[in-house]
Amino acid sequence: MKHFVLGVDVGGTNIKLGLVDLSGKVISRTSLVTSSFIRNKNRLISALCSQIKIIILKNRLSPKHILGIGIGLPGLVDFHRGTVNLLVNIPGWHKVPLKKIIEQKIKIPAFLDNDVNVMALGEWRFGAARGSKNVVCLTLGTGVGGGLILDNRLYRGENFAAGELGHIPLNENGPPCKCGGVGCLESYIGSRYLLKAAKSVFRKNISLEEVSRLASRGDRKALKFWQAAATHLGNGLAGVVNLLNPKKIVIGGGVGNAFPFLKKFLKQTIVRRAMTIPGREVDIVRAKLGFDGGIIGASVLVCDALFTNKPKRT
Amino acid sequence: MKHFVLGVDVGGTNIKLGLVDLSGKVISRTSLVTSSFIRNKNRLISALCSQIKIIILKNRLSPKHILGIGIGLPGLVDFHRGTVNLLVNIPGWHKVPLKKIIEQKIKIPAFLDNDVNVMALGEWRFGAARGSKNVVCLTLGTGVGGGLILDNRLYRGENFAAGELGHIPLNENGPPCKCGGVGCLESYIGSRYLLKAAKSVFRKNISLEEVSRLASRGDRKALKFWQAAATHLGNGLAGVVNLLNPKKIVIGGGVGNAFPFLKKFLKQTIVRRAMTIPGREVDIVRAKLGFDGGIIGASVLVCDALFTNKPKRT
Repeated sequence: MKHFVLGVDVGGTNIKLGLVDLSGKVISRTSLVTSSFIRNKNRLISALCSQIKIIILKNRLSPKHILGIGIGLPGLVDFHRGTVNLLVNIPGWHKVPLKKIIEQKIKIPAFLDNDVNVMALGEWRFGAARGSKNVVCLTLGTGVGGGLILDNRLYRGENFAAGELGHIPLNENGPPCKCGGVGCLESYIGSRYLLKAAKSVFRKNISLEEVSRLASRGDRKALKFWQAAATHLGNGLAGVVNLLNPKKIVIGGGVGNAFPFLKKFLKQTIVRRAMTIPGREVDIVRAKLGFDGGIIGASVLVCDALFTNKPKRT
Repeated sequence: MKHFVLGVDVGGTNIKLGLVDLSGKVISRTSLVTSSFIRNKNRLISALCSQIKIIILKNRLSPKHILGIGIGLPGLVDFHRGTVNLLVNIPGWHKVPLKKIIEQKIKIPAFLDNDVNVMALGEWRFGAARGSKNVVCLTLGTGVGGGLILDNRLYRGENFAAGELGHIPLNENGPPCKCGGVGCLESYIGSRYLLKAAKSVFRKNISLEEVSRLASRGDRKALKFWQAAATHLGNGLAGVVNLLNPKKIVIGGGVGNAFPFLKKFLKQTIVRRAMTIPGREVDIVRAKLGFDGGIIGASVLVCDALFTNKPKRT
């Protein structure tokens, strides 16, 4: 009997579901629009369960073919207990025992984690960091998030809150951040800040995609814009490299699409500022799984949990 | 038959040796003066081996009672290969296969690691961080070093260079650091910098011990001096807390003796600047093993290597 895993990627815009085989290949996909369920947690859970049942039936499978359901969520998730403690941008979620609810409704083991942790697992197992033991994954978007694979294991930290790369301070007297901190990396390279900076450089409202298009045509202002962003990011990553000495830094997320313009200056800044060996040895690469990254990562979460890193049952 | 471990702590001033039982108790101690061997690597190794033989004989034991020899060294150490790649302040060490040399001379398994990693192992197993799964250890002295215990394992990084807490940048345009970086934590709280700062505050040459004595008598200038140092350190640690979400931060080293004056402001700064849960939950504690920390840690390195984390044999 061939086995599959169900991967679910809960985002602020869409909820993507995919049937994934054990080699990380997405066999079948479907999705829900998040905003339809924004104020109703129970309707979201019911819709999710229905979609899971449909995707199983549609592929002429039964629950016994499905090893588990993996779910990546944008917020604070207790992997061991299987509870969602808080979701960013989706109100009404506070200590929801989602693992238990889904397992009762579907009778398939479910595993939850933070979406960036899930993305890190995917890139490490099947993507840009395949084969690397020590990996820092970074998502660049409105928020700047991170996931850490250390010694071949996802590192979650004491309260499942590790990996907050966006909230590493760059300057002691930098701008205040909404997290309560000061001078956080996110205040320098989050898309909200970058859009403001682009507006002031180009003296008009301009999207980051447009800045990248200009850069690809050799526009000097646009290239300089991305160089400045890469320098801030590199200054922050130099500290991460000195602290964690990773083999790979994987960069994903919307702003990550500017990777071709960031890469050179990022590596330059890290080589210049980090300690010699860790700075020289680290590879900066672009996330590879793209659109399917969350689904594939969620499938890795299931295999990782079932075969190596079993959470406590509550 | 009762078993013991030999712990060796190679420092810039002294080389301490101790016979340690499996509960972390130091049974017998001896030491060598490092400067006698500063330009002669082979004499240092010979003297070390002789002292090891003497300590075994003196305690009426034979090599079969000794599970292993653990050695902590101030520099870049390849734990898996057992080579010393570089020592700080002790010239002439470059890719020395010390593990192999000692095992040939003494016929007891030997294990090497960086001294701060070794200290972290000791504090985690028998000291201030006993029972904690995720621990950041910090040594404050001329240099600022670090060791990371993550998910109950010492994390060494890709090139055995992880944990360089002293070289986390505090400011993008801060003072240049001898490591090649800019605005490194060490440039703000290394003892060299602190001595300079104390001289300017007290308008005379004054030792950090004297500043602590004044602080303990309530001298406001001295209290303010340590508050400023704690604020810099806290600003740096806020980033570490956001990235690693540790349960405990253990502070040791010479400057660590000012811990009573640092503690309150450190915790305040971390609570103010780090993310809510990780900042609130982390405990800042003083290293507990003191003088014997290096010897005890080296004994933990042996047990850890033999029983859980066996290095490759070359």
